[in-house]
Amino acid sequence: MTGLRTTLGGDYYVSDAVFTAEQDAIFENLWVCAVRSSDLASPGAFRKLQIGRESVLLVRGRDGLLRAFLNICRHRGAQLCTESEGQVKRSFRCPYHSWTYGLDGKLMAAPNIGSLTDDSGGAIDRYRYGLVPVALTEWLGYAWVCLSDTPPPFDDVVAEATRTLGDPDAIDRYGIGGLDVGKRIVYDVAANWKLIIENFMECYHCSSIHPELVGVLPEFARGVAAQANVGLGAEFGSDTAGFTVDGTAGFDRLPGITEEQDRRYYAITVKPTVFINLVPDHIIFHRMFPMSPTRTIVECDWLYSADVVASGRDVSRSVELFHRVNEQDFEACERTQPAMASRAYRNGGILVPAEHHIAEFHEWVVSHLDER
Amino acid sequence: MTGLRTTLGGDYYVSDAVFTAEQDAIFENLWVCAVRSSDLASPGAFRKLQIGRESVLLVRGRDGLLRAFLNICRHRGAQLCTESEGQVKRSFRCPYHSWTYGLDGKLMAAPNIGSLTDDSGGAIDRYRYGLVPVALTEWLGYAWVCLSDTPPPFDDVVAEATRTLGDPDAIDRYGIGGLDVGKRIVYDVAANWKLIIENFMECYHCSSIHPELVGVLPEFARGVAAQANVGLGAEFGSDTAGFTVDGTAGFDRLPGITEEQDRRYYAITVKPTVFINLVPDHIIFHRMFPMSPTRTIVECDWLYSADVVASGRDVSRSVELFHRVNEQDFEACERTQPAMASRAYRNGGILVPAEHHIAEFHEWVVSHLDER
Amino acid sequence: MTGLRTTLGGDYYVSDAVFTAEQDAIFENLWVCAVRSSDLASPGAFRKLQIGRESVLLVRGRDGLLRAFLNICRHRGAQLCTESEGQVKRSFRCPYHSWTYGLDGKLMAAPNIGSLTDDSGGAIDRYRYGLVPVALTEWLGYAWVCLSDTPPPFDDVVAEATRTLGDPDAIDRYGIGGLDVGKRIVYDVAANWKLIIENFMECYHCSSIHPELVGVLPEFARGVAAQANVGLGAEFGSDTAGFTVDGTAGFDRLPGITEEQDRRYYAITVKPTVFINLVPDHIIFHRMFPMSPTRTIVECDWLYSADVVASGRDVSRSVELFHRVNEQDFEACERTQPAMASRAYRNGGILVPAEHHIAEFHEWVVSHLDER
Repeated sequence: MTGLRTTLGGDYYVSDAVFTAEQDAIFENLWVCAVRSSDLASPGAFRKLQIGRESVLLVRGRDGLLRAFLNICRHRGAQLCTESEGQVKRSFRCPYHSWTYGLDGKLMAAPNIGSLTDDSGGAIDRYRYGLVPVALTEWLGYAWVCLSDTPPPFDDVVAEATRTLGDPDAIDRYGIGGLDVGKRIVYDVAANWKLIIENFMECYHCSSIHPELVGVLPEFARGVAAQANVGLGAEFGSDTAGFTVDGTAGFDRLPGITEEQDRRYYAITVKPTVFINLVPDHIIFHRMFPMSPTRTIVECDWLYSADVVASGRDVSRSVELFHRVNEQDFEACERTQPAMASRAYRNGGILVPAEHHIAEFHEWVVSHLDER
Repeated sequence: MTGLRTTLGGDYYVSDAVFTAEQDAIFENLWVCAVRSSDLASPGAFRKLQIGRESVLLVRGRDGLLRAFLNICRHRGAQLCTESEGQVKRSFRCPYHSWTYGLDGKLMAAPNIGSLTDDSGGAIDRYRYGLVPVALTEWLGYAWVCLSDTPPPFDDVVAEATRTLGDPDAIDRYGIGGLDVGKRIVYDVAANWKLIIENFMECYHCSSIHPELVGVLPEFARGVAAQANVGLGAEFGSDTAGFTVDGTAGFDRLPGITEEQDRRYYAITVKPTVFINLVPDHIIFHRMFPMSPTRTIVECDWLYSADVVASGRDVSRSVELFHRVNEQDFEACERTQPAMASRAYRNGGILVPAEHHIAEFHEWVVSHLDER
Repeated sequence: MTGLRTTLGGDYYVSDAVFTAEQDAIFENLWVCAVRSSDLASPGAFRKLQIGRESVLLVRGRDGLLRAFLNICRHRGAQLCTESEGQVKRSFRCPYHSWTYGLDGKLMAAPNIGSLTDDSGGAIDRYRYGLVPVALTEWLGYAWVCLSDTPPPFDDVVAEATRTLGDPDAIDRYGIGGLDVGKRIVYDVAANWKLIIENFMECYHCSSIHPELVGVLPEFARGVAAQANVGLGAEFGSDTAGFTVDGTAGFDRLPGITEEQDRRYYAITVKPTVFINLVPDHIIFHRMFPMSPTRTIVECDWLYSADVVASGRDVSRSVELFHRVNEQDFEACERTQPAMASRAYRNGGILVPAEHHIAEFHEWVVSHLDER
């Protein structure tokens, strides 16, 4: 049929078995974005996060490096850290049997540790019985982690995610790693994570549910997504001064960006769980945490230049624009979730031409599930 | 063993797998009663109902006909209608991408609809991409729907359900389609739907839990159900003036009924989800909606002549009688549900002679499950 | 590897399938401790308990004997008794159809019971259609029940449980059957039952979480469990007067115990669900009721001589000691439960030398599951 393609079958959005397979093959196997690095500024600062089915502990070491570990005592499995975030001095002590680990994961102390011996009767290796490390890298000012023992090359993730921006240096010009968090909002969405990605990838719904967004980006009324056209972005309307809820002026454009990037909106997806929106004076950065087939947590950061945040200038009008977009989108996703279990959706729904690039995302998901 | 038979094994009443099979083979495959037709009186009046696992939208068309559709946008699956009942003017518009459907299900409008083309590049068929229709027929003033693509003959349902009344015209004489709803009560019962049917089919429990019912129908103290004897019904007690909680007089008998039907109570089951009680001056009509292996919603209507309802006469004494019976029955069913998971019930419970006709219902269930 | 062994894999502590297998092969197949016999002192006193997946009714007969039955009417499966404990006169009547059972389970009455006939047309056997009996024996003043049709020899349970006390008569000297309940506390623990047993079996955690216990039993600071050494027990500290929260004096030692048993603490596990602590002047008796893979109810009795209880003497200091130990232990178990689902625990955790006897418990569990 010319013009119309189909989505994944409904079962992909409700099945416990599919979600478990996704946790195994995607969230616990690929690079996912965990925290803003600056959230853990000083040695001993930590945050606990659920990645896939695992509790992961991120902590800055005394050497200034960020590291990630499974948040589980190696001995009998007690949860090492129960606080969601905080600050320790130089170690984590398991309260059950007092096994104690350094900020680099090394087993520092345990009752009768001298009597614990390895196969050859010698002293045990303090790293082998230390915390289980999780691969970590930093990009755009965020810590990305990968639970796989053989993480895929991170460069491939970057290349794939920034492809639609055209120029490979385009994203670096925003200097995202040096920006500060002006606002963070956490959303708890009753929908499968893939519905949220699909929604983010298309703009066929923009004219129906995003009046404020179409107000500043009038071409969105045509229903074609920025992501579908390599290197173009969406242009601000002629009477739009800035990317704000009422189109009034925002802040000075970020110093590194080109004329071509000014007065334009770009959006990219870093599969599996990140969406980034780029506008001249700020960045909107979404991290998803899929909790169940029908529930997804989304943490959204609004990033501005350090000057803007330090000066305490009012960011509420730019925050309000995309906060409304988020609320409109997540309501639509929640309205779509129930149909995924219907006989009407057994073979999927319809993708109109402006949504055809979503099918590539579906192929990406299926290919990862098939590999396992 | 003479005199004693067994019920279905306990697993039939608790297993998710059995319930899923029942949804597939029974509730989503056979005719089930959905709404009172008069609830949707004018064009655009609608009600949303769960039938099996599906959200079904019933709506009266501009041509005066009732129709049923899956309540799902054909495009990306958003729930079309989220209100449980209401009134639209001439269409349902999906709020996600604005696909818009007429009251007959036809796709009336969509963004860029002109550019959507079929296989041959021509305009798309507006009915093919319209709402998915669900079979609907009307009987006794109710809309009955069938989610199967090949619904069984409805005449067979009628013949089977009215068999125990003896005369095939018996039920028509009550003129049920022309009656009005005097009272509706909705019950949320923590029991498997089959326990509710089994309870309804036998009267061995009447003397134990239904003092008011036995008060007006003294022969029920013997424990023999009206449904077990073709054509007889149960006779009112000699000091009973009407089918009311205290045996005082009700209303004039319905005009069409025979002398034989006067001062008698009849009860029939329209499998899988309807029970009907017939008395001279009113009808008690139960529709069940099985929600899970252990939860069933029951909507019960008390139907009276249009005159009685229009005049605002007090129906509370006749309502109170069967409302008490319902509460007594549903409490018994809820008390029975937990035992269904016990080793004591693995091979089922006991049916005494007055309950033997329940075994035919069990055979009916099993035969439907076996066919799939 | 010398010195370190592994626990069961994490799946044993979270899997619904494993828990169902345990219910089948262990809780519904072996002897488990139900109630303190003196809780049901007079004829007609009853208690309802969940054992495995079954609701079990324990009742004292008019002949003075304790009996246990499945709490289910033989007819259509209604729950016979819905109160958790109470007192009846001489029978239990099912409220659904009035089948009525004596305290010995015999079917005493039913509507139309005269017309119910067996295969040969004769009167039915009142015991065959009576309540389903559950095997029951008494030991240490408790009623132990076994849901199996072929219960294992109870003497083997006793021999196995008391083996680590050395002398087979050691436990009898405490005269536990003749003691009275001074205090009962019920704990609702969000952890798998096996984590609770493992915790009880080892003392490697004592120095980390049990300051009061180590205060009275200083050798526990070494981390070696009383259960690991046959016949020795743990000696009170030289400045400890009694087994109380502050080490002050308790009550007179129980009359039957030997000098060797004085000023010593012994602990035994009666698999699958009982732990007993023996000190000179009282007994702490734990019964577990596993409710789900991740939830276990623990009822703990503090037993004293009848004189102590009758005189109303203050038992709070000895109760407080082990109540704190229980709360410390159960918090540790709840902290361990989440890790059971982690990849870090797929192949289990580590047992240090002082925990090696826990591996024998794991072998016991696995051997029972394998037998089915």
